[in-house]
Amino acid sequence: MTQAPQAPGALRATSRATIGDSEFDRDTRVERREAGHYAADLPAGWAIGDALNGGYLLAVVGRALGDALAHPDPFTVTAHYLTATRPGPALVRTDAAPPGRTLSAGSATLVQREPDGTETERLRVLATYGDLAALPGDVRTSAEPPVLPPFEQCPGAKDHPGGPEAGPPIAGRLDLRLDPATAGWALGAPSGRGEIRAWFALADGRDLDPLALLLAVDALPPTAFELGLSGWVPTVELTAHVRCHPAPGPVRVAITTRNLAGGFLEEDAEVWDSAGRLCAQSRQLARVLTR
Amino acid sequence: MTQAPQAPGALRATSRATIGDSEFDRDTRVERREAGHYAADLPAGWAIGDALNGGYLLAVVGRALGDALAHPDPFTVTAHYLTATRPGPALVRTDAAPPGRTLSAGSATLVQREPDGTETERLRVLATYGDLAALPGDVRTSAEPPVLPPFEQCPGAKDHPGGPEAGPPIAGRLDLRLDPATAGWALGAPSGRGEIRAWFALADGRDLDPLALLLAVDALPPTAFELGLSGWVPTVELTAHVRCHPAPGPVRVAITTRNLAGGFLEEDAEVWDSAGRLCAQSRQLARVLTR
Repeated sequence: MTQAPQAPGALRATSRATIGDSEFDRDTRVERREAGHYAADLPAGWAIGDALNGGYLLAVVGRALGDALAHPDPFTVTAHYLTATRPGPALVRTDAAPPGRTLSAGSATLVQREPDGTETERLRVLATYGDLAALPGDVRTSAEPPVLPPFEQCPGAKDHPGGPEAGPPIAGRLDLRLDPATAGWALGAPSGRGEIRAWFALADGRDLDPLALLLAVDALPPTAFELGLSGWVPTVELTAHVRCHPAPGPVRVAITTRNLAGGFLEEDAEVWDSAGRLCAQSRQLARVLTR
Repeated sequence: MTQAPQAPGALRATSRATIGDSEFDRDTRVERREAGHYAADLPAGWAIGDALNGGYLLAVVGRALGDALAHPDPFTVTAHYLTATRPGPALVRTDAAPPGRTLSAGSATLVQREPDGTETERLRVLATYGDLAALPGDVRTSAEPPVLPPFEQCPGAKDHPGGPEAGPPIAGRLDLRLDPATAGWALGAPSGRGEIRAWFALADGRDLDPLALLLAVDALPPTAFELGLSGWVPTVELTAHVRCHPAPGPVRVAITTRNLAGGFLEEDAEVWDSAGRLCAQSRQLARVLTR
């Protein structure tokens, strides 16, 4: 790695948040009720429009599974998004399979109560957890990290044409810096290519961990924008693989779409850490609801 | 598409099996017992070593979900493989979420009884189904199909150095033709590149449907072989997206691995039909257990 960006918190605050004591940790907190059941209260700060972000929700459910399962880290997590999750109370119910020696699998569902008291299922999750720290250090990869300008030279929420507060609520929780070469859509000139690249960090400077990587894979604007489509691109399903603990500092995220057909598209994400390692991969199937 | 292979059944049989009346249909049959529960009897013909193939098992569970859910076709299916499935009786239990207008999600688990009567969970599945025939016909893709020699020029099981019966039992169910350029591992000369390409068809000439695509994405030898690794590469998790009904005839399958790290690798598959459409994509996380 030749790029060595300053951590974003260092640019504007003397006290950076830390893993365990940060906005992300507080907002993804789950409280154990009975065996395998967890209560959460989901703040509106992670919304885009009326619905909470899918990657944020995956981190909430991922935290509950990390408590319920015998191993600490998400290795592979799949979420199917059934209905839009609203800010407010939610319940996560987990169902662990008998653990293996090095891996544990489990399912989870996140539900919310309607005003009339009935329960609505928001997402279902299936995951296998392990211990990233216990893996051998071998790396043999032909993958190349995305190339983008240094962190400080990429525009962020403060550069939004409508002002720093013009983005959705979640924009204030993140320090997302888009590669200008893939941000044409924001100025009405999409490239037509299905790729967006960005630096990703948390706004309070908290370093990333495996749970925050579940957020990172679903935090960029949809590739559909750069394909010239507007409107909502709801995720049907998202699967993320976490491959290593990310090194400190912002990560580089590249999302790509190759096949838009029949009103659906896949969106692949790669997350590269400051040490030049591919620390997460994801793919989602999304629906294109054009305006 | 300029390549127009003959269907494999046409090469050696006057009566080709058909969708609904074929070995694959009989061997993935499930019998409804009570609401959402299905009995299956899994033949040894789909084994590799002692364990049944993961893609075959996904098709069995996929057939049960197709009956249990309100929509017919798998759009996105994830399986987590917990323990090795043996030939013999099995039970599939499904759990459907309330259906949406165009999509239905559901979970399933496949279990087998041990000789002492206890139940062991083999795989857990989470899926969203829809109706492929109801999708609009638009295609806007930057993906390119893999290039490989014509079907008839690629070696199959009959060309196995040890004779036509030397492969695992599943080899007799498939008509898999490997691109010689990616089959060096079979002759002790792996390319070192993480890619294998092949034509895929069913041995009895039955055309492919969405369930058979779930088999196709996990039917090739592992990319690890072409990376020069030997031994077992068990799948931890596999997610497949089915994007369209495949056109008749063999499909082209390309599998690639970019990142082998910490003893795990991802293996991506693409399946292209004879009409030149990308009809399925998959990614699996697998473990490398080197000899």
